[in-house]
Amino acid sequence: MKVNNKDYTSIWRNENKEIFIIDQRLLPHDFKIVKLDSLDDFCFAIKDMWVRGAPLIGVTAAYGIARCLYKKNDLDEIVNRLLKTRPTAVNLSWSINEMKNYLKDKPLNEIVDFAYKKADQILEKDIISNKKIGENGLSVIKSILKNKQKKNINILTHCNAGWLATVDWGTATSPIYYANNEHIDVHVFVDETRPRNQGAQLTVWEFKHNKVSHELIVDNAGGHLMQHGEIDMVLVGSDRTTSTGDVCNKIGTYLKALSAKDNDVPFYVALPSSTIDWSLEDGLRDIPIEERNPEEVSKVQGLSSLNEINKVDITIKGTKCRNPAFDVTPSRLIDGLITDHGVFLPNKNSLKKLYEMTEIK
Amino acid sequence: MKVNNKDYTSIWRNENKEIFIIDQRLLPHDFKIVKLDSLDDFCFAIKDMWVRGAPLIGVTAAYGIARCLYKKNDLDEIVNRLLKTRPTAVNLSWSINEMKNYLKDKPLNEIVDFAYKKADQILEKDIISNKKIGENGLSVIKSILKNKQKKNINILTHCNAGWLATVDWGTATSPIYYANNEHIDVHVFVDETRPRNQGAQLTVWEFKHNKVSHELIVDNAGGHLMQHGEIDMVLVGSDRTTSTGDVCNKIGTYLKALSAKDNDVPFYVALPSSTIDWSLEDGLRDIPIEERNPEEVSKVQGLSSLNEINKVDITIKGTKCRNPAFDVTPSRLIDGLITDHGVFLPNKNSLKKLYEMTEIK
Repeated sequence: MKVNNKDYTSIWRNENKEIFIIDQRLLPHDFKIVKLDSLDDFCFAIKDMWVRGAPLIGVTAAYGIARCLYKKNDLDEIVNRLLKTRPTAVNLSWSINEMKNYLKDKPLNEIVDFAYKKADQILEKDIISNKKIGENGLSVIKSILKNKQKKNINILTHCNAGWLATVDWGTATSPIYYANNEHIDVHVFVDETRPRNQGAQLTVWEFKHNKVSHELIVDNAGGHLMQHGEIDMVLVGSDRTTSTGDVCNKIGTYLKALSAKDNDVPFYVALPSSTIDWSLEDGLRDIPIEERNPEEVSKVQGLSSLNEINKVDITIKGTKCRNPAFDVTPSRLIDGLITDHGVFLPNKNSLKKLYEMTEIK
Repeated sequence: MKVNNKDYTSIWRNENKEIFIIDQRLLPHDFKIVKLDSLDDFCFAIKDMWVRGAPLIGVTAAYGIARCLYKKNDLDEIVNRLLKTRPTAVNLSWSINEMKNYLKDKPLNEIVDFAYKKADQILEKDIISNKKIGENGLSVIKSILKNKQKKNINILTHCNAGWLATVDWGTATSPIYYANNEHIDVHVFVDETRPRNQGAQLTVWEFKHNKVSHELIVDNAGGHLMQHGEIDMVLVGSDRTTSTGDVCNKIGTYLKALSAKDNDVPFYVALPSSTIDWSLEDGLRDIPIEERNPEEVSKVQGLSSLNEINKVDITIKGTKCRNPAFDVTPSRLIDGLITDHGVFLPNKNSLKKLYEMTEIK
């Protein structure tokens, strides 16, 4: 997607086998490109969230293996260290295992080229998957417009399921970019998404640079806007989806789903079929929710009046905070799952068809 | 209530007819007492939110009239200027009219003493009303504990319906203080309450100084905690209540009510019966929602690493923001209204009984 009218992906490599990323911690205030070179670089960038979003973490790890093999690191050491960076990210271990399996019978003198080839494939696959989500989501947007006999659509999104969380296009944002490219009159209400404010920091930045009409709102405001008919569709991403269609996503998603149901607003989730956990039946019971650092609640990052990126304490120092990072939206509140293989109802029968189509099970 | 182990109210006067308030803009980082002296002082303190909360605004205006009469200002001028400070606050105009009507036939040489007397009465009335809300809410807390056969209760509250928004005790906090004083094991999850963070700034500060067990959470987290049985009751205030029991309160209240209903968590609203607008039948249709300054969304106030109170921009400068300040929770989502005259069901029939008990109609 565009940054300052130039095309970017969230990670790329050049002819000289060098890997580049955007340091996402500084967005939207500073756009800084960083070269990842050593194993330390890759581990630190994933752990410290210079890159974030499950698909992008997976691709970064794949290129980490390629780059570090080129730098003569030992494969086992690379794998072990990368695996430890974000222990709960499914895509991280999936991508590392893909690389390992692919490389295990390759001749040592060609292993670097093979590693780059495989990492390139993982990157390409992510882009293709997101483009398909965009096409399938565009059909949903068109059918909502037709249903409502409207010419414009107001979409609410939560967190950043954008191109910055993937390689390109994003998941929840992909149908929005497709609609915008087709000159459909789309406007997005962006939840700021406390505690880490990915909406205010990343989604707003994406939309600004890609000319998508948008407004920022606090997480509290969506219900009121739905009550007054100002939202035609809710579209969010998913961190983990069960075989029954329950969706684990950024904390607060569940509240928006309740409000969408209460006001007859279509609620859709966009996800690559690879993130469905086919072994899970009951999201609320089976998905453990990570509790993150309480400082994410008590401190807020932003640009000071001196144009420095700073954190301020919003409460009394030492105040106890609870910080669950995700919640589970039960399938009964979801109208459809927009995937790379089509749009599915969130129930076991419908998802069985998707299961048969996917290669990652 | 207590501040640094000393008893305070949010506004008070001394023997020399001087009026003092707490500058609430600086809380929780700085506890500063301010003397209001001139008509400019009173107007500025209300307009600029040194004092906030409907009941406290009303009492401040009443003392404003008394003090400014003492300072030889003209009554009509005082009234006109005070009325303009916060045009939508019902208690402001109510309290000013009370003062005006009371003073209209008083002899000029005694008018100052009468004005102080009436302002004292308005202050006392607020305290008594909140204490009754506390007693009535305590019964609700006890019956929830009995019902659940539990020894401890976890309450979620939104915004600050605390003693800082009134003269003393608060509305939603009053039952909590009563329970805490009776050594009931009460723990409160405090919503930070974006955009102005009254939960993080004011409610946390109140609870810390009054030794109420509490944890701060982001507004997104309450649904998840309810899904996992971590909340036994939701207790919030109300800015305006209809004769049918719809409640207009701080933006985001509606989302918590939806979640409470979905998880069978009792949802109660604490309010002085004087804030019921008996002329309204349908809150969603009839209550206009104030849209406030977009900068409340795009900037967050807190304490910098240099211990200065600063604001930081959380998004790109110039980003459009929508900022509705309140939402309406329909009566169907509310289990009871805790008032100074008892606990009522949120429907017309039940509230008719309350109407007959109240003096302000």
